[in-house]
Amino acid sequence: MKSPLATAALDQLFVEARTYNSFSDRAVDDATLQALYDLLKWGPTSANSSPARFVFVKSAAAKEKLRPALSEGNLAKTIAAPVNVIVAYDLEFAEQLPKLFPHADARSWFAGNDALIQTTAFRNGSLQGAYLMMAARSLGLDCGPMSGFDNAKVDAAFFAGSSIKSNFLINLGYGTAEGLYPRSPRLAFEEACRIE
Amino acid sequence: MKSPLATAALDQLFVEARTYNSFSDRAVDDATLQALYDLLKWGPTSANSSPARFVFVKSAAAKEKLRPALSEGNLAKTIAAPVNVIVAYDLEFAEQLPKLFPHADARSWFAGNDALIQTTAFRNGSLQGAYLMMAARSLGLDCGPMSGFDNAKVDAAFFAGSSIKSNFLINLGYGTAEGLYPRSPRLAFEEACRIE
Repeated sequence: MKSPLATAALDQLFVEARTYNSFSDRAVDDATLQALYDLLKWGPTSANSSPARFVFVKSAAAKEKLRPALSEGNLAKTIAAPVNVIVAYDLEFAEQLPKLFPHADARSWFAGNDALIQTTAFRNGSLQGAYLMMAARSLGLDCGPMSGFDNAKVDAAFFAGSSIKSNFLINLGYGTAEGLYPRSPRLAFEEACRIE
Repeated sequence: MKSPLATAALDQLFVEARTYNSFSDRAVDDATLQALYDLLKWGPTSANSSPARFVFVKSAAAKEKLRPALSEGNLAKTIAAPVNVIVAYDLEFAEQLPKLFPHADARSWFAGNDALIQTTAFRNGSLQGAYLMMAARSLGLDCGPMSGFDNAKVDAAFFAGSSIKSNFLINLGYGTAEGLYPRSPRLAFEEACRIE
């Protein structure tokens, strides 16, 4: 029987966690990105399909590739963040299923069914983006996710000639209070949930 | 500066966490479902839009409503689970934005843009489904997510006449080892990620 995590951990993951617009100068090294992936990869996906693909944008050159796709309101904070994660998904994820789901011919479930491929990639790629944010918070990192950018420009700059499509972006680093908005309200249980 | 969570917490959330097919008889009481929501609701969504809606299916009558929508392979384990969560999203989520995002007229960003509404609801509703699973694991619960069911039948049985659409299902309870598959492999960092 597992116990609930300590209150401090629940606070770090959920209750006190915030979306950050500003980050300290502390770098996020490549070993931390590897550790981040080595947590998030265990999150569940349909048939273990694991469709998400991640580009960690760190260099000045890569940030210049990203810049034209950013909306004006997101530009300065994104260029300034230590890392920008392009959360993407591979529409050819099924090619990996013989390895990822070896106990059934799962690849055949998707063959020729473009609607199922798109839905599965987008749903499960989004789940994996959430796992990345929760894993980042678990490691003491902070996140600033956004979908206000030009997906087609990101795809052209980073995924040309491939089956990979961008989903959303996450700024990643060690957050500072600068530009932190007052917390917005959430829906009450009765507004978002019902028990039947 | 936040520290990484303890190894035991990382194991509970990610490394040792599994998708469960069988659950003990221990009930999941309504206060636990409230606590679950009171964690997951803090997870970030675009413009704090919080499009996810959740039905916690517990009663025999509600399970009979769900039964015809389930695929044969998921039927017995789903009916037997203490709770089935219907993770759904409200296509009219923007009506809540004056309350959820009071510092801008965010509702107007979505008015008449059905493609943006659909994408925002599905992406962010999926993120919130992942937050629910991570919150459940944080509370010592176990999950069995699935997308192998008939969405249209769930929508007709639970959301008729509304703007709410089902996304995926999560069986919820305290897992047992029965029917637990050997863990499947994951993509290596180099297969799923690149650093630029």
